[in-house]
Amino acid sequence: MDMQLAVIGTIHSDIKDLASAPKMEDEAGAVRARIEIDPAYAEGLDGLEPGAKLELFTWFHKSDRSVLKVHPRGNKDNPVRGVFSTRSPARPNPIGLHRVTLVAVEEPLTLVVEPLEAIDGTPVIDIKPKPRGR
Amino acid sequence: MDMQLAVIGTIHSDIKDLASAPKMEDEAGAVRARIEIDPAYAEGLDGLEPGAKLELFTWFHKSDRSVLKVHPRGNKDNPVRGVFSTRSPARPNPIGLHRVTLVAVEEPLTLVVEPLEAIDGTPVIDIKPKPRGR
Repeated sequence: MDMQLAVIGTIHSDIKDLASAPKMEDEAGAVRARIEIDPAYAEGLDGLEPGAKLELFTWFHKSDRSVLKVHPRGNKDNPVRGVFSTRSPARPNPIGLHRVTLVAVEEPLTLVVEPLEAIDGTPVIDIKPKPRGR
Repeated sequence: MDMQLAVIGTIHSDIKDLASAPKMEDEAGAVRARIEIDPAYAEGLDGLEPGAKLELFTWFHKSDRSVLKVHPRGNKDNPVRGVFSTRSPARPNPIGLHRVTLVAVEEPLTLVVEPLEAIDGTPVIDIKPKPRGR
């Protein structure tokens, strides 16, 4: 089974390192960011309009994939839990899911989105419109 | 960069083929299903309690990954659009995102969830608790 992810784009953000990244996109510090789409996937953008509510899927490339238990939110005062009962970026498949608004589409292949807490250089692996009613 | 997904579990469902699968988990035909977790990831389940609202991530292993434009919902009457403006399972990285409720945790390593529209045999790649307020 082919389960090798393709990088469809890359995030460009003023958030340059994990220490300055908020944990969720609805927390203070999330910013307007740009996604540069790989030209190989340009056709897939057809129909994306500014104002769209999107689910942006990223790959937390700095994450430790061997971790199965964590202190939630990295706080040692929180008892350890299994990663699947947390949204820790450290997990076997470190997929990030971000609810963002598409602010603009800039020629040729840049999406401007907000708010986003992922760091500069994070690979983008999928973009979906948010389902109605959610 | 290591972007090879790990299979953390497998879906067991009465939905056996794509023809009988609904397109979204909130459509008629979505069912109660079981996820058999790979023992290597057992520790990651700690803290998951029945009643939890989860985001279940799957890999649509039957999808054509070369597709960049589709007729939305597979209906030829809908004009073609880029896959990133649709939730088509055919896309470069065919990640499925399903909102489910954890009905039960059965020993040793089975999660019972509902409602789920993915077909029997679909690989599970991540499980996250739904964020508060969404």
